[in-house]
Amino acid sequence: MSTQSIPSDSIAINASRLNDHLAALGQIGITEAGMQRVAFSAPDVAGRDYVVGLMAAAGMAVRVDAAGNIIGRVEGGEASAPAIVLGSHTDTVPAGGQYDGALGVIAAIEVVQAVADAGQTLRHPVEVMVFTNEEGTSFHRWLLGSRAVAGLWESEDFAAVADDGATLTARLPDVGGNISRIAEARRRPDELACYLELHIEQGPLLHRGGFPIGVVTGITGRSMYHVDIVGEANHAGTTPMAMRRDAMSSAARLALAVRRIAGEMEVVRVGTVGSMEVHPNAGNVIPGRVQMGVEFRDERMESLAAAEVELRRTAEEIAHAENVAIAVTAQRNTPSVPIAGNMQQLIADAAQLAGLEHINLPSGAGHDAQAIAAITPAAMVFVPSVGGISHAPAEYTTPADCANGAQVLLNALLLADGR
Amino acid sequence: MSTQSIPSDSIAINASRLNDHLAALGQIGITEAGMQRVAFSAPDVAGRDYVVGLMAAAGMAVRVDAAGNIIGRVEGGEASAPAIVLGSHTDTVPAGGQYDGALGVIAAIEVVQAVADAGQTLRHPVEVMVFTNEEGTSFHRWLLGSRAVAGLWESEDFAAVADDGATLTARLPDVGGNISRIAEARRRPDELACYLELHIEQGPLLHRGGFPIGVVTGITGRSMYHVDIVGEANHAGTTPMAMRRDAMSSAARLALAVRRIAGEMEVVRVGTVGSMEVHPNAGNVIPGRVQMGVEFRDERMESLAAAEVELRRTAEEIAHAENVAIAVTAQRNTPSVPIAGNMQQLIADAAQLAGLEHINLPSGAGHDAQAIAAITPAAMVFVPSVGGISHAPAEYTTPADCANGAQVLLNALLLADGR
Repeated sequence: MSTQSIPSDSIAINASRLNDHLAALGQIGITEAGMQRVAFSAPDVAGRDYVVGLMAAAGMAVRVDAAGNIIGRVEGGEASAPAIVLGSHTDTVPAGGQYDGALGVIAAIEVVQAVADAGQTLRHPVEVMVFTNEEGTSFHRWLLGSRAVAGLWESEDFAAVADDGATLTARLPDVGGNISRIAEARRRPDELACYLELHIEQGPLLHRGGFPIGVVTGITGRSMYHVDIVGEANHAGTTPMAMRRDAMSSAARLALAVRRIAGEMEVVRVGTVGSMEVHPNAGNVIPGRVQMGVEFRDERMESLAAAEVELRRTAEEIAHAENVAIAVTAQRNTPSVPIAGNMQQLIADAAQLAGLEHINLPSGAGHDAQAIAAITPAAMVFVPSVGGISHAPAEYTTPADCANGAQVLLNALLLADGR
Repeated sequence: MSTQSIPSDSIAINASRLNDHLAALGQIGITEAGMQRVAFSAPDVAGRDYVVGLMAAAGMAVRVDAAGNIIGRVEGGEASAPAIVLGSHTDTVPAGGQYDGALGVIAAIEVVQAVADAGQTLRHPVEVMVFTNEEGTSFHRWLLGSRAVAGLWESEDFAAVADDGATLTARLPDVGGNISRIAEARRRPDELACYLELHIEQGPLLHRGGFPIGVVTGITGRSMYHVDIVGEANHAGTTPMAMRRDAMSSAARLALAVRRIAGEMEVVRVGTVGSMEVHPNAGNVIPGRVQMGVEFRDERMESLAAAEVELRRTAEEIAHAENVAIAVTAQRNTPSVPIAGNMQQLIADAAQLAGLEHINLPSGAGHDAQAIAAITPAAMVFVPSVGGISHAPAEYTTPADCANGAQVLLNALLLADGR
């Protein structure tokens, strides 16, 4: 076997094959309401089977680990070299799109196929990892597969129960996993050289700016809060305005405060009130209780901390002014994950070799890369999402942009292999 | 039979009997979550049966009309005199209280019983009417019985379908009614002398001020609106604050505007956002759509009209500023019903005869009286609601206040009979 490195711009991906495979995967679980390849569902299993076939056709040895992750591997020329990992996921949110996750998986397989087609063998082994339940729709436990690989499972993962009452223990075998052997899915840092993931941006910046490639500078941190506002339900016709303890008005003030903290005040990159439950939610009753979901995201942990301080301060102020009780409970705090400078540079160099302009940008969404980054240097390539739309049926990335992303991923692999 | 009028302060109600009967009715349909005597339910039918028994014991001839209204009647001394009607309802909202409606019915029967116990016969016949489905929880058609008596049924009443799919046509026989003969429930104005209703205030004014009796000056008008805000659902992590079309923020601004229109601006007496539905209502998705229920209430129709103008103006302003679409659809406009000056005076005089202080106040809630007012002069007596609480298990009026109200109702009957 050859052990010298391959020139990093010497192999081209097959754009039409890439897009054909992507379209074929996009037919599995498609409905009028969008993609329904929710983890552990029949369409998810069908999508996984399709991917296993592609991997085998590309010459990979395929196995499924204890977390249900599909791992395809081609050996490298240097027997003891650690593996370069390419990965993403094929599960979708309900009514999701055809590109989120799928592009990264299909592109990773295309990259391996293109190297094989070129008759080349890299110095490093290459592994393509397809991670279980990245979205976390099932069992409300996201990054489930990648966190197992990184050894980041929590007690909640072991005890996870789906909305229909099924346990993760019972369902994991449906994708070839085994919760009692989950520790075996964990990989040692010395087995891995680095991790590269191509993904759609899921935001508007590349598409709006006309940039084909994004180099991810870090993956956003995310703080979630459950806010419970308790006032007093009362008759909407007989209770004077001045005597009300209206949980809805308090919720409205707090929702606008969340926006202000991220917007005008720029304490944090984004802040969202995505959910609200009103009680009793009747037209003629002053709401006595409102529960809201609040989240903040930022690449700087100190910004998330500052946003929480401001949220709690504002909630107290509103509670006092409105004579209601407001409880702000921190739900989950996903730390931000910076991408190392040399890994950002790897992607930037790969884009330059492909003749593609790039910008640096943070990832506002979470990705498997943030889990894998705990055990090996990780980098991410973004390609444009038309209109910034994602997690929706209208999610779209042009075939040309998909091909650009795959070429940059291949170039980055060759660069990393040559190090 | 005697035909001279009875001195208006010469008969006393039996306070302990009144409160015993009220407590007994309050045991029918009681649960830990409050009263569940929703119209047409088994507890509602049981409550009606209890009331029929009391009427018969008080010497009334009892019938049920085509709308399911229970009508007890005692004849008067003057053969051709029109009837004085006392009425209210025994149905409750879900998780409601023991006094709303029930007090007016039990007091009306007590008044008739007290006259009989005194061995007296009035000049006018007296009818006690227990109206079907005042609350409108069932079939979403309120004042169902009293509107039938007043000839105010609408096409929606005939076509009414419950949440469980049952038609009103099918259910009305459960309370002895018959929708095909509904016109027979209508009463001619020349059959009736006037209508008197005792009710709990359901608001805080009497209790806060320490006044035992309220003379109702008018029944509030009510305008309801369905507001549909359409923005764009998008990823909460990847969509910059400045590029959002967040239906939640728009809804929050509009909810605060509704409060401001009634509060600081004093355009209308009260304004409420009681209900809100958020789509998709997920923590990590910017809400693309919010639907809200808005209502305004005032005794002056011109105030309701002004509030609607301000609501629509503000909605347009918000839609423009937030780049969302806001549709404001008028749902129902219940006109306000003034109480004639001489009928207010009747109640005031009756209170004075009982040695009870009163204030004049509008009714912020709707009542059967507003329907019956279309065919005969109506008046209402209010007694204090502790803490202003109503439509809730904690709804409470003291036994002394219940007795005061019943005595004023009796005095008003005697005064009306003597006219």
